[in-house]
Amino acid sequence: MMELEISNQELSQLADEAIDLAKAYWASLDHRPSYPTTSGEQTAALFSRPWAEEGLGGSVLQDFKLITEHARPSTGRFFGYVAGSGEPIGALGDLLASVLNQNVGAWRSAPAATTIERAVVGWLAEAVGCRGFTGSLCGGGSTANLMGLAMAREAKLPANETGASRCVVYASEQVHMSVPKAVALLGIGRQNLRLLPVDNAFRLRPDALQAAISADRQAGNTPIAIVATAGTVVSGAIDPLGAIADTARNEGLWLHVDGSYGGLAALAEPQKLSGLAHANSLSVDPHKWLYQPIDCGCLLYRDPQVARATFSHTDDYVRILSDEPTEAFAFFEESVELSRRFRALKLWLSLQYHGRMAFREAIVRDLRHARLLADMVSAHPDLELLAPVSLSAVCFRHRARDNHALLKRVIARGHVFLSNATIHGQFALRACFVNHRTTGDDVRAIVSEVVAAADELDG
Amino acid sequence: MMELEISNQELSQLADEAIDLAKAYWASLDHRPSYPTTSGEQTAALFSRPWAEEGLGGSVLQDFKLITEHARPSTGRFFGYVAGSGEPIGALGDLLASVLNQNVGAWRSAPAATTIERAVVGWLAEAVGCRGFTGSLCGGGSTANLMGLAMAREAKLPANETGASRCVVYASEQVHMSVPKAVALLGIGRQNLRLLPVDNAFRLRPDALQAAISADRQAGNTPIAIVATAGTVVSGAIDPLGAIADTARNEGLWLHVDGSYGGLAALAEPQKLSGLAHANSLSVDPHKWLYQPIDCGCLLYRDPQVARATFSHTDDYVRILSDEPTEAFAFFEESVELSRRFRALKLWLSLQYHGRMAFREAIVRDLRHARLLADMVSAHPDLELLAPVSLSAVCFRHRARDNHALLKRVIARGHVFLSNATIHGQFALRACFVNHRTTGDDVRAIVSEVVAAADELDG
Repeated sequence: MMELEISNQELSQLADEAIDLAKAYWASLDHRPSYPTTSGEQTAALFSRPWAEEGLGGSVLQDFKLITEHARPSTGRFFGYVAGSGEPIGALGDLLASVLNQNVGAWRSAPAATTIERAVVGWLAEAVGCRGFTGSLCGGGSTANLMGLAMAREAKLPANETGASRCVVYASEQVHMSVPKAVALLGIGRQNLRLLPVDNAFRLRPDALQAAISADRQAGNTPIAIVATAGTVVSGAIDPLGAIADTARNEGLWLHVDGSYGGLAALAEPQKLSGLAHANSLSVDPHKWLYQPIDCGCLLYRDPQVARATFSHTDDYVRILSDEPTEAFAFFEESVELSRRFRALKLWLSLQYHGRMAFREAIVRDLRHARLLADMVSAHPDLELLAPVSLSAVCFRHRARDNHALLKRVIARGHVFLSNATIHGQFALRACFVNHRTTGDDVRAIVSEVVAAADELDG
Repeated sequence: MMELEISNQELSQLADEAIDLAKAYWASLDHRPSYPTTSGEQTAALFSRPWAEEGLGGSVLQDFKLITEHARPSTGRFFGYVAGSGEPIGALGDLLASVLNQNVGAWRSAPAATTIERAVVGWLAEAVGCRGFTGSLCGGGSTANLMGLAMAREAKLPANETGASRCVVYASEQVHMSVPKAVALLGIGRQNLRLLPVDNAFRLRPDALQAAISADRQAGNTPIAIVATAGTVVSGAIDPLGAIADTARNEGLWLHVDGSYGGLAALAEPQKLSGLAHANSLSVDPHKWLYQPIDCGCLLYRDPQVARATFSHTDDYVRILSDEPTEAFAFFEESVELSRRFRALKLWLSLQYHGRMAFREAIVRDLRHARLLADMVSAHPDLELLAPVSLSAVCFRHRARDNHALLKRVIARGHVFLSNATIHGQFALRACFVNHRTTGDDVRAIVSEVVAAADELDG
């Protein structure tokens, strides 16, 4: 009979091979192109295969090298989207999390892991100036924003039992796509999400917010929540959190802050992000600006009772049989997931290995890199900065080229990876710094690569 | 200045230490108690600490041993809930996934990883008799059921733009708690989920289903979806999928099948689960009955256009700039998440390392273990089987003891771990076999431990 069990000796050898692959990959990062030479045809030919009846044994590990050749590496010269750099101690944490295979649904199922997740969530809350908030880790900003808005709805116009009633949510036109997606999923309807105008620094205008709420009230609509953004994904703008919080309070609305990208910059810039503490719920993403491997998002909130009212639907078969508060605690009663990965272990190891100061300094350096790029762009006659730099996202364009073609050329050259954005209807090149491996030379390479690619397009 | 960067030499040493911890833990599994000696007070004292300014360096890895002492191990004698056993090659896959740190949102962001996830999803579809279905991996059954019901709603009574209209969903009273939770989140309202009666084998009664739909239509309500269960969490019952599919077809309703627990048993029992192919959407959980480390769920579906209509809300900043179909593919347009972990790598390595036959045999053995326990319970004068055994969950009780107290005693003895369920209002002991490490002796230990614990209660 076939067995899934592996002898300790064979497993030991496989584990050594896997860790050697990991080490070799990390050591190779500096020499890898910022984007692989590959195509859909190639990856399909390599990786579309059936699941064979017979096992391949240890040779399957050799696929890893093939995968790395068709993967985007987390080098210091990857500046696309908001892509954290994958801190290696965090990756070792993910190994050990899967070895332990805890289900962090409740203390009962995972005593140490649940306690560690609660501790780590407390660290994150304190790091962003929200001491006393609790919450949970999740897959990322999309899930955190979905949970925050679910809590808003249940707090203001309960729908769990009776279904969603018509209500209105407010955000700026720069809000992340996960917010309309959440509004749609929750049955609120995207047409009931007001996407409001921003000022010239891409921040939600409090006057426009107030006017929209008043207009809705006059029309007989029911406002329930405001989503403010701390670090818009395009330009890193931080909505005026204090003024928005005043409106939320005066109007009796839930304030959800999407700090998926920018929230954790509070470690380095506490004044700039002091308004986070006004939130009823707040998304932050350790897999972005704490450099952790995907996935690791976090929703923080002020009132756990609202989380329980929103997410607790417990069956007998998992009912907690303890009266002791720590032992009776269940993450699955405060979040979407039931089976939950031990995401906290990577944070526990990585954050303590390096210490808080090292993370603060790394964020400071990212912010400095963004200013360096902005200064270089501003100083270059062929380049134009397209948005103020609030955090670490820099949007710019070449004045005399088709910037879409230019971006493709930059990526194809393989030295730096940029992504794109739309600013006032213009196609923008965009670099975002949330990468502990990036050096000043890497930043300077952005400008030289864009200029070199522009020269190629010219020729 | 503090740096997050670690030298290759230091990282190599840490990686060796981490993999040694993993190996030692795996080697220790057979000798660990099925539940740790711990308390909320103890775990709080050990793991509630602040995030220090200064880094601790490599010594933080030593926490791992402490964590294992307050964690539930995946031994062969853990029979609670539906807890997969954490196949070690899968854990090595999770290491390498975090080392690579791909964002499997789209081919463009992760060419090899996206191609591999599409391949692996195809394997799962074929394994459960649903060749041609596509889908995506996710965190688990709760998310998969949420996505399946979101697709049902968007297919039958679109709500993304305008908000949820009143509609009705049908399931049996044995449906998993994630379904009412999903119905609540989607704004449908739990009062619009009809929890229908089951037969004496805990299967949804098709006559009750048809009657409920007819009654709703007569009352002017709008049925949209039926949730059938392939493996109820309490007793493993499989709803009559063929008859339910007929009703769904005749009534024009979406059929979502929750196969989170039982779906993958189709590898071993294809006839018993042949009805899965009738589903419009189907949840299966590789972290349950393919023994993978948490987290790894999967939603399969027949029509990807419905997934795109439900989940595609794409901003310019991530808009795909390719026309080639493989390269233009984006998981984030067919699922809830935007940043997505490379969950497919553990499946790619583990499933190919062992081969399909070995997984089939492991499931066969789980099914055999359940029948062995059921036979032993039936043969024992003090024990009573409380539900038919369809798959690998066995619910039973001691005829002459307070079974709640008995369960606590069994767990405290530390030799086997059982969980509980409610059957016809009675507190039941419950053992579930989805564990490749379990032996026949481990199964026999369940009966001897329950009897020994009963004797202790007696004394």
